[in-house]
Amino acid sequence: MQVDLICIGTELLTGLVENTNAGYISRRLWSRGIPVREQRVVPDSVPAIMKALQESLDSSEAVICVGGLGPTDDDLTREAVSKLLQRPLSLHRQWLQQLERHFAGRGYPMPPGNRKQALVIEGSRLLHNPHGTAPGAIIPAGECWIILLPGPPEEMKPLFEEEVLPFLEAQGFRTGWRTKIIRTAGCGESFLEEKIKQAALPEEVLLSFVARGGEVILQLKARTEEDTAGALLEKAALRLREQIGEYIFGEDEETLAGTVAALFTGQQLTLALAESCSGGLLADTITDIPGSSLFFKGSLVAYSGEAKQRLLGVEAQLLESEGAVSEAVALAMARGARQALDASIGAAITGIAGPDSDSSGSPVGLVYTAVTGPYGENCRRTMLPGTRRAVKERAVQTLLTMLWREVTGGRFSCHLN
Amino acid sequence: MQVDLICIGTELLTGLVENTNAGYISRRLWSRGIPVREQRVVPDSVPAIMKALQESLDSSEAVICVGGLGPTDDDLTREAVSKLLQRPLSLHRQWLQQLERHFAGRGYPMPPGNRKQALVIEGSRLLHNPHGTAPGAIIPAGECWIILLPGPPEEMKPLFEEEVLPFLEAQGFRTGWRTKIIRTAGCGESFLEEKIKQAALPEEVLLSFVARGGEVILQLKARTEEDTAGALLEKAALRLREQIGEYIFGEDEETLAGTVAALFTGQQLTLALAESCSGGLLADTITDIPGSSLFFKGSLVAYSGEAKQRLLGVEAQLLESEGAVSEAVALAMARGARQALDASIGAAITGIAGPDSDSSGSPVGLVYTAVTGPYGENCRRTMLPGTRRAVKERAVQTLLTMLWREVTGGRFSCHLN
Repeated sequence: MQVDLICIGTELLTGLVENTNAGYISRRLWSRGIPVREQRVVPDSVPAIMKALQESLDSSEAVICVGGLGPTDDDLTREAVSKLLQRPLSLHRQWLQQLERHFAGRGYPMPPGNRKQALVIEGSRLLHNPHGTAPGAIIPAGECWIILLPGPPEEMKPLFEEEVLPFLEAQGFRTGWRTKIIRTAGCGESFLEEKIKQAALPEEVLLSFVARGGEVILQLKARTEEDTAGALLEKAALRLREQIGEYIFGEDEETLAGTVAALFTGQQLTLALAESCSGGLLADTITDIPGSSLFFKGSLVAYSGEAKQRLLGVEAQLLESEGAVSEAVALAMARGARQALDASIGAAITGIAGPDSDSSGSPVGLVYTAVTGPYGENCRRTMLPGTRRAVKERAVQTLLTMLWREVTGGRFSCHLN
Repeated sequence: MQVDLICIGTELLTGLVENTNAGYISRRLWSRGIPVREQRVVPDSVPAIMKALQESLDSSEAVICVGGLGPTDDDLTREAVSKLLQRPLSLHRQWLQQLERHFAGRGYPMPPGNRKQALVIEGSRLLHNPHGTAPGAIIPAGECWIILLPGPPEEMKPLFEEEVLPFLEAQGFRTGWRTKIIRTAGCGESFLEEKIKQAALPEEVLLSFVARGGEVILQLKARTEEDTAGALLEKAALRLREQIGEYIFGEDEETLAGTVAALFTGQQLTLALAESCSGGLLADTITDIPGSSLFFKGSLVAYSGEAKQRLLGVEAQLLESEGAVSEAVALAMARGARQALDASIGAAITGIAGPDSDSSGSPVGLVYTAVTGPYGENCRRTMLPGTRRAVKERAVQTLLTMLWREVTGGRFSCHLN
């Protein structure tokens, strides 16, 4: 049994809005062993929605439709489903009252357009939406199911997690396909591939690689009897840990910054940063983690040479003789941040993000990352490929990898290829 | 005449990789007046690719297929097209030589798998890919066109811009539909809608609204004779500028940070930041702009009270009496950053990004943004909705809006609803 996903909205087809829902829903379904056959994006048009729905119902056992449930004239998903199934829309009195209360609570009467958000297809189950005015729905359609979800991600996600995933699992959409994601850092793809060849994974487990911004992500897939797939994946993950464990920082939705944060918090360490070419992205990445204030003291984003002197106490003479993008300056920045914020560990990034070089003529992509702490200090020189944004992201990933290794055991060396 | 878009890759359906290509290609096509009928994502499977292609060829005049052109066994797009069209694949000797040179230049022989990247469908035109080993192709298919592009965005984009867009325009896919995007900040959607009603736009121009992270984006669409649509859109944009000009910061792909950067650079102003709850995101946003080092001095990401004292000179007594999330502290932070970095303008953000409140019990989403400069100083108090990340993003947008207004004429007040 498999699922199709139809995202509805002209704004997605014109590219005005990025479609982040398709990736999220697909990833979450696969993680539970529910395969996604196809994703589609169609405009706010009754014939287009009907055609896509009919094609999906011919091939899959469930279709999740996202979007087109708003109050305006171009929200047509309900009408299209009603027409396709030849079942009328009827008023859901409780949801209408809920809508009226919602608007009354804000001090004005319900606009007439919102009334149609209380229309449901006969025989369907309404999914209560606590974050907006568009309810979801689960609609039986012969041997299949049509599931409607609102388009705004903050409304879609809770309904999907709390209602749709459990419903599909209960209906037996879990097929025995199971996936597990293993996340690595500090090791290049081909080096890792060589090492994994020696891991002798169970034959039923398929392995795929994706390199993304300095991480190499491994996806394990197993298709066997329902109750053995999970055990097989655990076995494969264990083999991988034996072979490449030193590069594995997390699984599934875990992030390198989250792993570093947990280690710092657990060991009661504090962190201070000095950022030049990463321009605040490292601090931003760390402060995306709830509770980061427990270990993160702050970052000095010192973009100019003057700022490096004023904020971090880097000596003018050192900047002059070594250049702002150098090992000596990276280490001086890390020491300066550690001292300025009285942290147990100081870390720094300096480099050339591009698109142009600086006055020294250093090549675009040259980045130094430095860490200083109670165990000593370390600096790495790397040449990072890609656009300005890509260099920033990879510089952050490089420094997070150093911090992770520092805190997990003081191993500074990384095998990158 | 319209275009379909098929993205090919199991990694997109499992959600392992975000599909950013679909939005990019759609946006670029629409901007040239080429309508996109549908986007699809299908797995690396010959029958699935063939089925989607056939359905698209039945409805559209061109199909752009992205992905599945790599060297590995699961790259099957070429094979699927060959089978569907019943036209054989033949070896393109020049591209094979190009591939061999590519690998020789890296000091090792071409892996056998890459040979199939030199296979082309008979009668098709090869699109030279300077950034990778997978060439694109334009393939005539009866009355239609099938266009193949590699999946990695950095390879796809140049081929799409330099080869595919001009080709489709030359084939007459430009339909008279033209779009223009107008970007606004500092004004809520419904307030803006009221004002626009008075703008008397030309009847042939359709207007749609999207609110995204503190911006309201207006999309104008016109469908008329080829040569009048552009003029109509310009006329509509002019009417909008007369009515809501004070809220418009840019058009098309322009960003608020880019507009602020251009104003600072043009007026030879410099900027210093102090960030608490935004955690470096504001500095990151500004340093994404090439050349920002011309005006941006740096940011002090002062996450703790201790850091606010040490880095920004905020007095302990003020933090104690007013709390870290207060107008007085926001202004003191802005002044501290301006002084520490000797900048013409200082700006600060302090607030509660959540998910939990701080010890003061201030509500999640409460944010103060402050600006101080030669013309005086100003502070805004806002309640921002959404997740931790959303609060960070909206806080940054709020401060950028203040900076924009400060520099364009010292008007501090914003109409938000």
